[in-house]
Amino acid sequence: MSELWLIDALKTLCPSNSSIILGIDDDTAILRPTQYETLVCADMLMEGVHFILADAGPAAVGHKALAVNLSDIAAMGGKALSAYVSLALPRSLANEEFILDFYRGMSTLAQDFDIAIAGGDTNLWDGPFAVNVTVLGEAHEKGAIRRSGAKVGDQLYVTGPLGGSIASHHLNFRPRLDEAKLLMDNFDLSSMMDLSDGLAKDLRSICMQSGVSALLDRQTIPLRDTLKNNPDALRHALCDGEDFELCFTLSRAEAERLKKDPRFAFCTDIGGIIEGKDIFWSDDRSPMLWQGFEHGKNQKG
Amino acid sequence: MSELWLIDALKTLCPSNSSIILGIDDDTAILRPTQYETLVCADMLMEGVHFILADAGPAAVGHKALAVNLSDIAAMGGKALSAYVSLALPRSLANEEFILDFYRGMSTLAQDFDIAIAGGDTNLWDGPFAVNVTVLGEAHEKGAIRRSGAKVGDQLYVTGPLGGSIASHHLNFRPRLDEAKLLMDNFDLSSMMDLSDGLAKDLRSICMQSGVSALLDRQTIPLRDTLKNNPDALRHALCDGEDFELCFTLSRAEAERLKKDPRFAFCTDIGGIIEGKDIFWSDDRSPMLWQGFEHGKNQKG
Repeated sequence: MSELWLIDALKTLCPSNSSIILGIDDDTAILRPTQYETLVCADMLMEGVHFILADAGPAAVGHKALAVNLSDIAAMGGKALSAYVSLALPRSLANEEFILDFYRGMSTLAQDFDIAIAGGDTNLWDGPFAVNVTVLGEAHEKGAIRRSGAKVGDQLYVTGPLGGSIASHHLNFRPRLDEAKLLMDNFDLSSMMDLSDGLAKDLRSICMQSGVSALLDRQTIPLRDTLKNNPDALRHALCDGEDFELCFTLSRAEAERLKKDPRFAFCTDIGGIIEGKDIFWSDDRSPMLWQGFEHGKNQKG
Repeated sequence: MSELWLIDALKTLCPSNSSIILGIDDDTAILRPTQYETLVCADMLMEGVHFILADAGPAAVGHKALAVNLSDIAAMGGKALSAYVSLALPRSLANEEFILDFYRGMSTLAQDFDIAIAGGDTNLWDGPFAVNVTVLGEAHEKGAIRRSGAKVGDQLYVTGPLGGSIASHHLNFRPRLDEAKLLMDNFDLSSMMDLSDGLAKDLRSICMQSGVSALLDRQTIPLRDTLKNNPDALRHALCDGEDFELCFTLSRAEAERLKKDPRFAFCTDIGGIIEGKDIFWSDDRSPMLWQGFEHGKNQKG
């Protein structure tokens, strides 16, 4: 694997778009300034923590490494524009086939959403495989939706089924960028985040940052098909993590409009925002005490 | 090391600035759009490749991980605005003291240049220590300076002494952001890059991308003090790597102005741009055949 081969391969494989003035070729990428707020997120995925390379294969890891970041951009209600990829590659994997498979997995997803891959840093070492992807995006003209805007009286929604993502969903999920745009174009959302650590934990983040609490309806929380006969399905749905669905709040008036619009059948009302600190189940008003998922105590900021 | 402790520590340690609307607190950072072109770069540093943690200590690694990216922004003639930090942390290092030392080393440099640290992703694993930093910046009002703009007849300059950086310079260097701004404010540069892989290799990149060649003056290439009695000093200066000085070209007329201005005494004329493909020594017109430094065949795009 020569350096010139690698640069040529990346130039061939990596898509560009109209946000890019200069991509992989210089000390930095050069981009047109965004019209609305610029969004930036970075996530590192590591062998044995976020994937098992021998099971997943390089293409799926390439897909996931980009997808988790696109999910963060979707969570702000934004549009993703470009990605920057840093690889820590074990010397045993430093072959052309591995690199091509990895980048093909990532590029297929990038092309689906017209995202440029505009920077790469490929390094060999004696450690395991790790990949960092940084994504730049642009907020919707209505502005970025934060975790901190949930208000007492709002309704609480998720964009799809939860739990059991470890079987395959955590590797092959489609980030909810299109759904986020449709929601932003049609409704005024008060808060949003993506569910990466499980609803039990992530909902606490919305509540804490908004200074509110929530009532959760255990009857309506949508379960992934593979959990339907699992006696512990609800706990899986709240605690498994890596659902990468969006969790959002909006006023009751907005929620009434949403319920009547068949384009939003993918959204499920799972409860409401109340005053207080602890999250409760809506049926018996008992506290929801589950904690959600931690990748061995990781932290995203 | 709890997650809440970590978020609080990062919020306390990480500087902000006027480019940041929302930093470490949500799914993405929210930034004001840049006025001129946006610049983006990402570099991953890894144990045993870019540093030996036991020798360097966490603060020096924090400094270097940011500094190498600032050097890339300087190389475009730009201003650095904000940094995003992803850590792959061995479980044995997951203690508060290590994290604080690392971030203090990075924050000290960030504050020096008024750069925000606006995002973090901290992950534990069973591998060695690695850190990726992404930096966003803004081009100078004159535009970003590329590698590809060198023209036949231009003069070739470097901003400081080269070689022998392994002793300490590669860990504690000050990225040339101030020097880049002073140059941009006062001169029209035709091309620029930062010297990370050694002048011998990096100058080839300028030449190849500009479709030109260079004459190098072996008498004027500035040597680091520690090389002064080294019989092989010139080869070290061209091949050692990690100098993180800027190499730039400008027209002869601009170079004449620069030579007369005492504020630019840090700049040294080391040759000129000619037609052709191979780089030659200016005294005997023999080809310069040295190859420069590779971190075990890494590649930056």
